[in-house]
Amino acid sequence: MIPAGGSGTRLWPLSRTGRPKFLHPLTGTDRSLLQATFDRLAPLVGADHVYVVTGVAHASAVATQLPELSAANLIVEPSPRDSCAAIGLATAIIERRAPGAVIGSFAADHVIERVDVFHEVVRRAVEGARQGRLMTVGITPSRPETGYGYLECGEPLAAVIQPVHAFHEKPSLDVATEYVKSGRYLWNASMFVWRSDVFLDQLARRRADVAEPVRRIAAAWDGLDRESVLDALWPTVPKVAVDYAVMEPASLDGLVSTVPGDFGWSDVGDFETVGALLGRDVDGVTVVGDPDQVVNLDSEGVIVLPSDGRLVALLDVHDLVVVDTPDAVVVCRRDRVQDVKKLTEMLRDRGRDDCT
Amino acid sequence: MIPAGGSGTRLWPLSRTGRPKFLHPLTGTDRSLLQATFDRLAPLVGADHVYVVTGVAHASAVATQLPELSAANLIVEPSPRDSCAAIGLATAIIERRAPGAVIGSFAADHVIERVDVFHEVVRRAVEGARQGRLMTVGITPSRPETGYGYLECGEPLAAVIQPVHAFHEKPSLDVATEYVKSGRYLWNASMFVWRSDVFLDQLARRRADVAEPVRRIAAAWDGLDRESVLDALWPTVPKVAVDYAVMEPASLDGLVSTVPGDFGWSDVGDFETVGALLGRDVDGVTVVGDPDQVVNLDSEGVIVLPSDGRLVALLDVHDLVVVDTPDAVVVCRRDRVQDVKKLTEMLRDRGRDDCT
Repeated sequence: MIPAGGSGTRLWPLSRTGRPKFLHPLTGTDRSLLQATFDRLAPLVGADHVYVVTGVAHASAVATQLPELSAANLIVEPSPRDSCAAIGLATAIIERRAPGAVIGSFAADHVIERVDVFHEVVRRAVEGARQGRLMTVGITPSRPETGYGYLECGEPLAAVIQPVHAFHEKPSLDVATEYVKSGRYLWNASMFVWRSDVFLDQLARRRADVAEPVRRIAAAWDGLDRESVLDALWPTVPKVAVDYAVMEPASLDGLVSTVPGDFGWSDVGDFETVGALLGRDVDGVTVVGDPDQVVNLDSEGVIVLPSDGRLVALLDVHDLVVVDTPDAVVVCRRDRVQDVKKLTEMLRDRGRDDCT
Repeated sequence: MIPAGGSGTRLWPLSRTGRPKFLHPLTGTDRSLLQATFDRLAPLVGADHVYVVTGVAHASAVATQLPELSAANLIVEPSPRDSCAAIGLATAIIERRAPGAVIGSFAADHVIERVDVFHEVVRRAVEGARQGRLMTVGITPSRPETGYGYLECGEPLAAVIQPVHAFHEKPSLDVATEYVKSGRYLWNASMFVWRSDVFLDQLARRRADVAEPVRRIAAAWDGLDRESVLDALWPTVPKVAVDYAVMEPASLDGLVSTVPGDFGWSDVGDFETVGALLGRDVDGVTVVGDPDQVVNLDSEGVIVLPSDGRLVALLDVHDLVVVDTPDAVVVCRRDRVQDVKKLTEMLRDRGRDDCT
């Protein structure tokens, strides 16, 4: 299951509400992040067992990008209601079609370098899920990142199943440094593997207000009443993240385990990451895209994303990010890339939704 | 006479070889610099006595922008051969049509704020020209500018005719400071007023290699042989600036006078000047154009020229110039605006003439 949501506002103006991050080829190939995710998962389960959950605005783009996706496996939300509703609905639909199925949920907009290692880690997580555990795949941290949540484990980490004691929110730098040093913490990349019946049971116990409408929608999904039941109930589903609603409390009850994964993961979360993943050094600047579209005199430390058919010229500028698109260009101090999303908020406040 | 040449490479990517500075509305109104120059001169002499000298690449754009320009007064050079050839040819053509006419020559790409003062100064220069002097209009300097040449005069300066002792090339800052302090130096803005016969006589004495082909082309201009004579002789005319070929040596012989002009002149030479002339302060940055096309968070000291229908977003950047156009964007350290032309040289070296 691939939840394909989130607008990736830290990658604005590349990522837009109407064409979010997962539809863009930020993979080093012509494949979009969504397509690369599909390519990565299809060998594990077969293309006809891959599901995508996405919003109504992106359903046709998803279908166009993924011709191998079965139409019955494209689950379209009428409006965004956060990850617990999206993942809960898909799990409930799959449970009706294949009771007790093992399901993995993997975001549509991440990059993984070593796919063979990823496959091996997921196969181990599937073993844990078959035994009735709520599994996650935690990422072996490579730095004291303050932008991610962490999974606390009991043992020094190896790539075997082990219990998760707690989920932790994004930490301070000091705390993150302690986490990494201890060798017992993993990044929470919201990769989950579980049996559908096990997850739905936990959801019903912990969030009946999500579980009940989701159960009723799923019951109607493959019948004639889908639209009317969906229209009536979907707007009533509380907006909550699945981590917070189910996984965190379940971990405190000893029901969650993980397999540490060290396979070159990135959430492609901001332009710094994009530059590190996909950039090439050209005359002292990092170009993501066609180097013929960049001309530089005396600039250094700049990440440039040129747009097709447009030239970006730099003259003695330093430590910037320059992102060009057909209708907007952003010039950003490099250590402020996290705040690009604030520009989209300013634009929305001005009524400039055409640009966001 | 309006010599409309020069590609304005310091204003790239706004100014292009194919659409140079003088065709752009850098005037604070919808009128281009060329149109504003025409508007300023027509009241002095009547629209049907205004001439434009331009290159073959821009003849149709000039004609389109100036519907009041007489077709007979549009002098088209087959190739650029610098200002002595351009101004010499126009003067020789006018001399044949109206012997002994007083001619003023004013660049197509300058801005003048106080047109009434400009008119008064030019009328005084015309008096001097009628008496047989080679007149210039010198600009009362407002700062020790190192980017212009200077005219050395004998007296503390008032707006009356006075002799020019010498022309000086662009000075160092120390020298420029001395010049301005002395009160005896004016900026050379290449504004000239002379009788056609007087100028052509000086040209023949000093640069027969220019004067002779120009005389023969002018003789053929209004007849059937224009094209063949122009094709044969124009490529033989030496490339030299009129200041250097005629005015500087004539000043040493005591033949040049000036009227100081203090009428808010600018050569709109670089983006710093464009910002000062046409910019508005919007949230701490200087916007030349539509402020709705600029969004800024925490940036200061930036000059922005947005392009129609495209957004420029700035995040915590400082002391830059950002110029957006339909097919190229430049991001330049503000104190390097003079070097924008080097970017065009780099592009030409790469064979990217499409962008210059």
